[in-house]
Amino acid sequence: MSQVMSDTGIQYAQWAQAMNRSELYQIMGQLARPNLISFALGLPDTALFPLKAYLNAATAALVRDTAVLQYMAPCRDLKAHIVKLMAQRGVVCTEEQIFLTTGAQQGMSLLARLLLNDKGSVLTEEITYEGIITVVKPFQPTILTVPTDTNTGIDVDGVEALLTGGARPAFLYVMAEGHNPLGSSMPMEKRIRLVELARRYNMPILEDDAYGFLYYQESVLPALRALDERNVFYIGSFSKILAPALRVGWLVVPAEMIERLSFIKQANDLNISNVTQVAVCAFMDAGHMDGHLSMLRAEYRRRRDTMLAALGDHLPASAKWTTPQSGMFVWVELPDRVINSELLKTALETEQVAFIPGQVLSLRAGGAAHCLRLNFSNLSPPQICEGIARLGRIVANAHWHNFDRSIDYEYRPASH
Amino acid sequence: MSQVMSDTGIQYAQWAQAMNRSELYQIMGQLARPNLISFALGLPDTALFPLKAYLNAATAALVRDTAVLQYMAPCRDLKAHIVKLMAQRGVVCTEEQIFLTTGAQQGMSLLARLLLNDKGSVLTEEITYEGIITVVKPFQPTILTVPTDTNTGIDVDGVEALLTGGARPAFLYVMAEGHNPLGSSMPMEKRIRLVELARRYNMPILEDDAYGFLYYQESVLPALRALDERNVFYIGSFSKILAPALRVGWLVVPAEMIERLSFIKQANDLNISNVTQVAVCAFMDAGHMDGHLSMLRAEYRRRRDTMLAALGDHLPASAKWTTPQSGMFVWVELPDRVINSELLKTALETEQVAFIPGQVLSLRAGGAAHCLRLNFSNLSPPQICEGIARLGRIVANAHWHNFDRSIDYEYRPASH
Repeated sequence: MSQVMSDTGIQYAQWAQAMNRSELYQIMGQLARPNLISFALGLPDTALFPLKAYLNAATAALVRDTAVLQYMAPCRDLKAHIVKLMAQRGVVCTEEQIFLTTGAQQGMSLLARLLLNDKGSVLTEEITYEGIITVVKPFQPTILTVPTDTNTGIDVDGVEALLTGGARPAFLYVMAEGHNPLGSSMPMEKRIRLVELARRYNMPILEDDAYGFLYYQESVLPALRALDERNVFYIGSFSKILAPALRVGWLVVPAEMIERLSFIKQANDLNISNVTQVAVCAFMDAGHMDGHLSMLRAEYRRRRDTMLAALGDHLPASAKWTTPQSGMFVWVELPDRVINSELLKTALETEQVAFIPGQVLSLRAGGAAHCLRLNFSNLSPPQICEGIARLGRIVANAHWHNFDRSIDYEYRPASH
Repeated sequence: MSQVMSDTGIQYAQWAQAMNRSELYQIMGQLARPNLISFALGLPDTALFPLKAYLNAATAALVRDTAVLQYMAPCRDLKAHIVKLMAQRGVVCTEEQIFLTTGAQQGMSLLARLLLNDKGSVLTEEITYEGIITVVKPFQPTILTVPTDTNTGIDVDGVEALLTGGARPAFLYVMAEGHNPLGSSMPMEKRIRLVELARRYNMPILEDDAYGFLYYQESVLPALRALDERNVFYIGSFSKILAPALRVGWLVVPAEMIERLSFIKQANDLNISNVTQVAVCAFMDAGHMDGHLSMLRAEYRRRRDTMLAALGDHLPASAKWTTPQSGMFVWVELPDRVINSELLKTALETEQVAFIPGQVLSLRAGGAAHCLRLNFSNLSPPQICEGIARLGRIVANAHWHNFDRSIDYEYRPASH
């Protein structure tokens, strides 16, 4: 279910010759419709962005010193702010362990470059963030997967079985908190066991915590990095808590890795944008971050609660869904339905509502066939209510001619 | 003469295990000294940046629409501006052939990913921009080189000899205009011959034109891309003509390559920063670019002329230097001297003046041993005069205990 790009006379590298665009990517192309209520993408609500405070801080920083416009070393003061921010994730670290990146995606990309050999192997979950697959694809890797539990995340038993069976992946990619697409949080005992496995087998864990600061209880479990500073390489981002367009993220890694990462970063894009890096720093200098985070958590919790209530009102009794403690997504399962791109197409055309079919987020063929992902952060509560009502009508009225029992549920690794 | 990073318990990818930091990089670490007059780096003068016009444009764009802060497709209007800008380089292109990047460095990096196989081969000049070497290094490639003529750039006969001899590099990397470090411009007949070779052998040319808009005559020769839209992949940047910290650059490539490049870009860092992308667009919308470019050309020409005159006043009669028609560098040759990092160290300590020894910019061991690179764009004319006077004293007074005739001048390809 992916689109092969047309071949041409240009001599591409081997891996790029039959490059596919994922189904998810194709769906994204259909979302620019007026009146559409979209639960599809993992977007923060930019209407909640503190524009005035940001502009004041950003302008003052540039006016103060135009050297900001030059090529420049990473902003030391921003690293100091991140060290403090990381305490909210239970992480004790130093500025020497912080590496600034052009968003979390670049963090993943740089770490893959540093750790993964051509045709090496990596380990992840069946249901995971698609961006890690795009990162490793040029390496033509073997992608090992273990099952994902809807409520507790990665199957640690599966990880152990692979490692004791001799697998030696270059790294494990995992989201312990605010899982995309599940919204799940790993229980503490699973976190501890996973980190112990990493230690025992000298296996780096790439912990993607892009959603970890958006939690909706009084407290949140510590990041994996809080449990091990040697084997866990932490990936953070301002995209979800400030704005994606800033393209500012960070890594927390052993200090000895920083110089190698600098080399790779320099080859990729020299510096991160000082203009946005220094603006984020100035915004934090002015003391705005804590209040902004509190506001975001309260507002997104309200939206999550609105969505959970609306799902109860509009979905059939057979439906189940997660109650996310963090992140931006609710994961819905409709046991007697098959949710695929065809259904999405119908939803877009008849009810003007969008979601992501679980199938396109699963690395296992036929996996997550009854599931769909809903984002609750980027719509107001009234929009959420209206959108879930539309979704309810789709679920009730669709012909379900696509409910195909012949789908192959047998396990196979992702073919990318 | 490079520093091997210490090895640790972390399992890095093979290429990264014995990663070296180049001598150039080590030199850069020594430039943060008060009272230093540095001719070392390729920096635009950010004091010439139109800060007020930029801030007005950037602020207005954000206030107009906070969707700018979201993940977003590349800015179509900016592409339209770039199409018009490319006419100044003799290039006819369409918006469908423009790909926006996080600076020129990312343009090179994405193209290498798309074109180069692991352990493949690339072709470049002996004297070239170091950034292309950092880009290809993780691929563990064979780097083929041909000589560089100080005044006319790459040796096209050498390219032809390699190709007729059977070499099939993934691409040739070249700077036709405003060469870094030479400041040279390729004569028209060499441009035509090079493009014909690319066509005949189906060899992609990566044309790095980061300095091509900074020319100091009435007119400038067309970019290689103006001569061939199929085999020349053009790399452009706002770093030298606006500001490096914006991290906005572009490619001009066949339209059919755009989707593959998008895939790779998405894996690298998702989007370019809309905040800066849209700001550059708004700045150009307001019509500021042409005037800004004219001002830059006039001012940098003045600085170049100041440097050329000062060199005549302060260097010995045996010295030779280029008269750059474009770019930011003068290349100086002192036939009876060896210019190395030791001499630079002396220069930094005794006269507080910095330059780049040619040796560290040459891929041939012992190449450019009598040469040095001087940047003229980032200092005022009085600073340039003072700095060249200091350089003159260094050249006159140094003990030259490093003039070592035993240096191995024999050709060998770069080792990386």
